[in-house]
Amino acid sequence: MVSTSPDASGAVPAADGAAAPFGAVRLTPLTAADPIPGGFPTVGVIGGGQLARMMQPPAVALGVRLRVLAESETGSAALAIHEAPVGDHRDLATVTQFASQCDVLTFEHEHVPGPILEKLIADGVPVRPGPAALGFAQDKLAMRTKLTELGLPCPSWAQVRTWEELQAFAETVPGVVLKTPRGGYDGKGVLVLSESTADTARNWLDRAGPDGLLAEEKVAFTRELAALIARSPSGQAAAWPVVESTQKDGICHEVIAPAPNLTPEQAAEATSVGLRIAGELGVVGVLAVELFQTEDGRILVNELAMRPHNSGHWTIDGAVTSQFEQHLRAVLDLPLGEVRARAPWTVMVNVLGGEYEDLYRSYLHVMAHDPGVKVHMYAKEVRLGRKIGHVTVCGDDLDDCLERARHAAAFIRGDIDE
Amino acid sequence: MVSTSPDASGAVPAADGAAAPFGAVRLTPLTAADPIPGGFPTVGVIGGGQLARMMQPPAVALGVRLRVLAESETGSAALAIHEAPVGDHRDLATVTQFASQCDVLTFEHEHVPGPILEKLIADGVPVRPGPAALGFAQDKLAMRTKLTELGLPCPSWAQVRTWEELQAFAETVPGVVLKTPRGGYDGKGVLVLSESTADTARNWLDRAGPDGLLAEEKVAFTRELAALIARSPSGQAAAWPVVESTQKDGICHEVIAPAPNLTPEQAAEATSVGLRIAGELGVVGVLAVELFQTEDGRILVNELAMRPHNSGHWTIDGAVTSQFEQHLRAVLDLPLGEVRARAPWTVMVNVLGGEYEDLYRSYLHVMAHDPGVKVHMYAKEVRLGRKIGHVTVCGDDLDDCLERARHAAAFIRGDIDE
Repeated sequence: MVSTSPDASGAVPAADGAAAPFGAVRLTPLTAADPIPGGFPTVGVIGGGQLARMMQPPAVALGVRLRVLAESETGSAALAIHEAPVGDHRDLATVTQFASQCDVLTFEHEHVPGPILEKLIADGVPVRPGPAALGFAQDKLAMRTKLTELGLPCPSWAQVRTWEELQAFAETVPGVVLKTPRGGYDGKGVLVLSESTADTARNWLDRAGPDGLLAEEKVAFTRELAALIARSPSGQAAAWPVVESTQKDGICHEVIAPAPNLTPEQAAEATSVGLRIAGELGVVGVLAVELFQTEDGRILVNELAMRPHNSGHWTIDGAVTSQFEQHLRAVLDLPLGEVRARAPWTVMVNVLGGEYEDLYRSYLHVMAHDPGVKVHMYAKEVRLGRKIGHVTVCGDDLDDCLERARHAAAFIRGDIDE
Repeated sequence: MVSTSPDASGAVPAADGAAAPFGAVRLTPLTAADPIPGGFPTVGVIGGGQLARMMQPPAVALGVRLRVLAESETGSAALAIHEAPVGDHRDLATVTQFASQCDVLTFEHEHVPGPILEKLIADGVPVRPGPAALGFAQDKLAMRTKLTELGLPCPSWAQVRTWEELQAFAETVPGVVLKTPRGGYDGKGVLVLSESTADTARNWLDRAGPDGLLAEEKVAFTRELAALIARSPSGQAAAWPVVESTQKDGICHEVIAPAPNLTPEQAAEATSVGLRIAGELGVVGVLAVELFQTEDGRILVNELAMRPHNSGHWTIDGAVTSQFEQHLRAVLDLPLGEVRARAPWTVMVNVLGGEYEDLYRSYLHVMAHDPGVKVHMYAKEVRLGRKIGHVTVCGDDLDDCLERARHAAAFIRGDIDE
């Protein structure tokens, strides 16, 4: 177990509720079930959404216990994982207390402030990935600076603090995408510069912190790819087949594994970029590198995520080792599992919230229509455009897999009724 | 939700603790998480061992909630499943109260008394499989009588109440296996008749109930097979490929899917026997039919289990739909999933408790030695010969799969150290 700070009575000190908007952390008391027979560890996950939820099936198989620091009692992970205290990941006392009941700490998002993680490490808590690596996923300016130093292929970019700096950059590229360095996800914090968005851009610049904003070349890409890597603290790394991903309104919509019509050289290049980033940045756990492929066949790094990622959901059904099992193995410094695809093609399609709320009823038709489709639902309330689940189909024929997975997702969402 | 019996205040009445050796059931209070968004149901499972535990991963994927009536707080399932109240499955009030918080009731063992199940059904609780079917898994004399009526292939057998009746039967067969009609499992309640066991046999006869014992022909089988079937309340049925299973000391040890060197006719016969039993007995959920294959190629029914079964653990990694997902789909009357094998061969080897207790440490070597082996541990305390986990290897070459799975199981058990 990691170091704890019990008082003489052995009690864990209470968190300082005053500093925590979510209220003090309420930890499940230690029971006779602690420790697990056989020396199995407890992995603490910060964040209680579907990514933490999907770590539970491999944790059950491995015999590892998960504890989740959740945002709410009714979160996606809290319904699947035994111990899911609610607490604020931005509060040091809360995170420290949570960590004291875990053997290793990991994340389903990158939002825990660096200073909290530094303090935990100083207290002897294994934090994986560590704050040095996570900093590059938290701050896109730091990420672009680092990747450029490493000579890795990026779109043109500039740090801009003023309208004049932005205009100067805009003159060097065919189009500009403006990004807030921190806090963006799923299309949020991203603005394509145009006449109609100029006022918004000025507004963003006015409100930006001292570091300003990240301006990037709007890449004329032909498609998006993703390289999914896992890396352990001892430096072992594994790379799944490179996939093609399709976004809709800034949200991942469809993934095809492996990416069709990718030459072996292109696949090797994308994998090599992913492995190099994982190693140079000292990532531990799963790293997703979102890539643009350009008309002339170049590959450019778009975004990084240091956790299981939507572009890797296909691995649950489609690979020998899923990204969720691999993330647990990596943060526990266990040898990594085989990443081979289990079928020639795997297609994953997200189920986004629509008008239809009676999700369970859709199973009657979806499962009868296609007994081979694998359905994954996240136990989240339906909201328009929200990721509420995904479906996966594996097979020998890509068009067949695509048609089947799209049908199932559209039916569950309520877009079609046959 | 099924019918409940709340008093006017809405409180669930307390179970009658006096009748329950385990103490009164302690149910997790209903929370804001109840019901789950999207209309997803709750499946109640009687029994908190590894079979209930292994239902949790597919329940998480499907978005279905499990509640388990467990034997102890530290049981295998209780460590993986959120709501696992401890209670006695032989106590009507306990089971009734448990059922009141579930949409459907199912089992990981066959030991709930029939009268309790009849009462639940009278109260409107969906009990799957129902007591009429379960009776044939609970009582081996009833099973043999029924299968013989149906003309299904059984070893020679007789109901014996006295030594004379046993002797008379013994003269008609080359060898005798004596079985207690109720309560046996994993080799318990089974006695091979010989000079050295004659005294034990007399003792069993003396202590037997009014129905006496089941005497069966000791079949000179060449190997054991198993047919795994799932059946839904609406009568849809699905059969996985027939497997070969190897027992050691009366406990399932190894399973090969599909059974090697089985002719298509033999496979069809075994499957047909399984489907016929599922239909004629009105089974709902998974049915495992253990079979003997004789030297002259005949197939005889050995035992039945109406729940996920050790002979089907290979389906977790080796089939499109696992027996645990299928059991949930069946008891929820959802359309059944595809049962196709995902690889030419899948080998499952049980991990039995040995001398070695530091199970987790074994992962370091097992996973480095073979990144493709799938490990499943049950979070159970190590006891000699106890089922504490299993490993699975899928591949194109049977000998390779066998060697790899056996190595991993032996290493985790501590039988080998390289």
